[in-house]
Amino acid sequence: MPEFVDITYGGGGAKTREIIENLIAKKAKKLNFWNGIGLESMDDGSAVPVNDGYLVFTSDSYTIKPIFFPGGDIGKLAISGTINDLAVMGAKPLAVMDNIIVEEGFSLKDLEKILDSIETLANENDVALIGGDFKVVERNGVDKIIIGMMGIGFAEKIVLDSGLSPGDKIIVSGPIGTHEIALLAYREGFSTENAIESDAKPLWNMISKALKVGGITAMKDPTRGGIAGALNEMAKKSRVNVVIYEEKLPFLDEVKGLAELLGIDLLEAANEGIVVMGVKEEKAYEVLEVLRRTSEGKSAEIIGEVVEGTGMVILETTIGGKRIVEEPIGSPTPRVC
Amino acid sequence: MPEFVDITYGGGGAKTREIIENLIAKKAKKLNFWNGIGLESMDDGSAVPVNDGYLVFTSDSYTIKPIFFPGGDIGKLAISGTINDLAVMGAKPLAVMDNIIVEEGFSLKDLEKILDSIETLANENDVALIGGDFKVVERNGVDKIIIGMMGIGFAEKIVLDSGLSPGDKIIVSGPIGTHEIALLAYREGFSTENAIESDAKPLWNMISKALKVGGITAMKDPTRGGIAGALNEMAKKSRVNVVIYEEKLPFLDEVKGLAELLGIDLLEAANEGIVVMGVKEEKAYEVLEVLRRTSEGKSAEIIGEVVEGTGMVILETTIGGKRIVEEPIGSPTPRVC
Repeated sequence: MPEFVDITYGGGGAKTREIIENLIAKKAKKLNFWNGIGLESMDDGSAVPVNDGYLVFTSDSYTIKPIFFPGGDIGKLAISGTINDLAVMGAKPLAVMDNIIVEEGFSLKDLEKILDSIETLANENDVALIGGDFKVVERNGVDKIIIGMMGIGFAEKIVLDSGLSPGDKIIVSGPIGTHEIALLAYREGFSTENAIESDAKPLWNMISKALKVGGITAMKDPTRGGIAGALNEMAKKSRVNVVIYEEKLPFLDEVKGLAELLGIDLLEAANEGIVVMGVKEEKAYEVLEVLRRTSEGKSAEIIGEVVEGTGMVILETTIGGKRIVEEPIGSPTPRVC
Repeated sequence: MPEFVDITYGGGGAKTREIIENLIAKKAKKLNFWNGIGLESMDDGSAVPVNDGYLVFTSDSYTIKPIFFPGGDIGKLAISGTINDLAVMGAKPLAVMDNIIVEEGFSLKDLEKILDSIETLANENDVALIGGDFKVVERNGVDKIIIGMMGIGFAEKIVLDSGLSPGDKIIVSGPIGTHEIALLAYREGFSTENAIESDAKPLWNMISKALKVGGITAMKDPTRGGIAGALNEMAKKSRVNVVIYEEKLPFLDEVKGLAELLGIDLLEAANEGIVVMGVKEEKAYEVLEVLRRTSEGKSAEIIGEVVEGTGMVILETTIGGKRIVEEPIGSPTPRVC
């Protein structure tokens, strides 16, 4: 490892995992408790068996730039990200705690807007705000505001990243890359007729309906590292290959155009309002229909399938070629989520 | 409320509570779940009934300056603070998750030292590291490093802030103000023969022994806002008055001297390795003896007692006077914890 941290280590890809495995989890003797699921599984959350099910825990920090953007703000991002990390473990979100750090001189009106985003979505999703903390640092101690949020949910059955089997279909619930491109376009000052809005939103409502159908074998929230990162993790942990079809990938046309302009691979771009899942073949079309009947999942598509293999993701291109979709090493664009 | 956040809002006193009550918790419809204890109790942690006891949750962010200081570093502070927030709720710490944000260019050697502090103390306290995240921001996005940490513990019986009754004795487990004065003296470049070391340390080992004696009616981790803040909260929530005796307050002589030089009231100074508790009179001396037999509690003292009243803290001074110890409004010294 090098002497200093560079920006790619925070990208959520291979280099972030390198830091977590080689440094953060290196000396810890226990990675779970009560025979639950912990850091060893490197999933979206952790869990312990309780009351004929599992309490699921997740925690993350949000340091986005800018803090207000088309389609949302850092508060909406934090509560959506927390709810979605729980939801993709199969857990109904129950409660969150938020730790807020602001820079001296931060506008109380802005703080109120951000908190309003958090509380409105918490209320809509029947999520309790059970604790929190507030700190102020001197100017330049943080860039405006950082939100740390932990979430607690309850799952009757846990959905892991590692459950894919050959034959499963891969479903994505909406257009890919929207959040990252919306944010970068706004940052760079690209103007389109209508600004592209981030897809940030909580997905428990949609996911809970899909879970009721059954057959979901693995699920992931493709934030940093995007679909490429999520599918690589699922394929590697499940010891299978995933084949995806370029022509099936849903995206917004203006997002595709801007991604090309910005040189961003949409497969690696961060999402905040879609889920990628493996579903048993016999349930896949029913799950797809249920997803499409929700407002969050109306653009859902079956984008690929699981085959035997050793953990690779293969893209079949529109023109009939094949290429390996590598796990992103580290994103060069920090602070998108 | 004013238009902009000033530094005093982060002090952990009345102004922090104003932000939490008027803004953070204003619109949230639910403040707890499963008939547990949540934000409405404004305690050191939250809890839900599970398995004939309570799972207890806590979360906080650490943005200290400097990140290495006599007696510890930001990692030791984060794990100690998390363990202690659980311990003062009566909970054995079981697990933590950490979210780390560093500035681009942060030294990996420093990161390793900080993580080593976290993992060594987690291992010593049989605490699992069940999850975490790592992000990198551009220079000046954060000042070096911020650690968010959530903790999970299990309590057979919850100890709240609000359990004081007239007749209870007030015990403090060690010298007061040491952490804040150690940090400020180091920041200001005051040199004493031996640098004053922060008292940062996990206290579950000590607290668990005191809990076995029984009779503990309320307990608090007097970090930001110090003993003055902790006792005011306990007195107000319990609807009693607390009388403390100046001559009984334990402190290190060099800390007292520097506090005078720096103009800091030791009662308001942050601590990271002591606990303040109310104990039924008939158990108070036994608890005191048990505390004194531990390395963490060898300077424990009965510093006062609970009388009927309306939520005030009264100091009886060494020369026989009385003064009201107000709840600190907001600390002017940020980033000590």
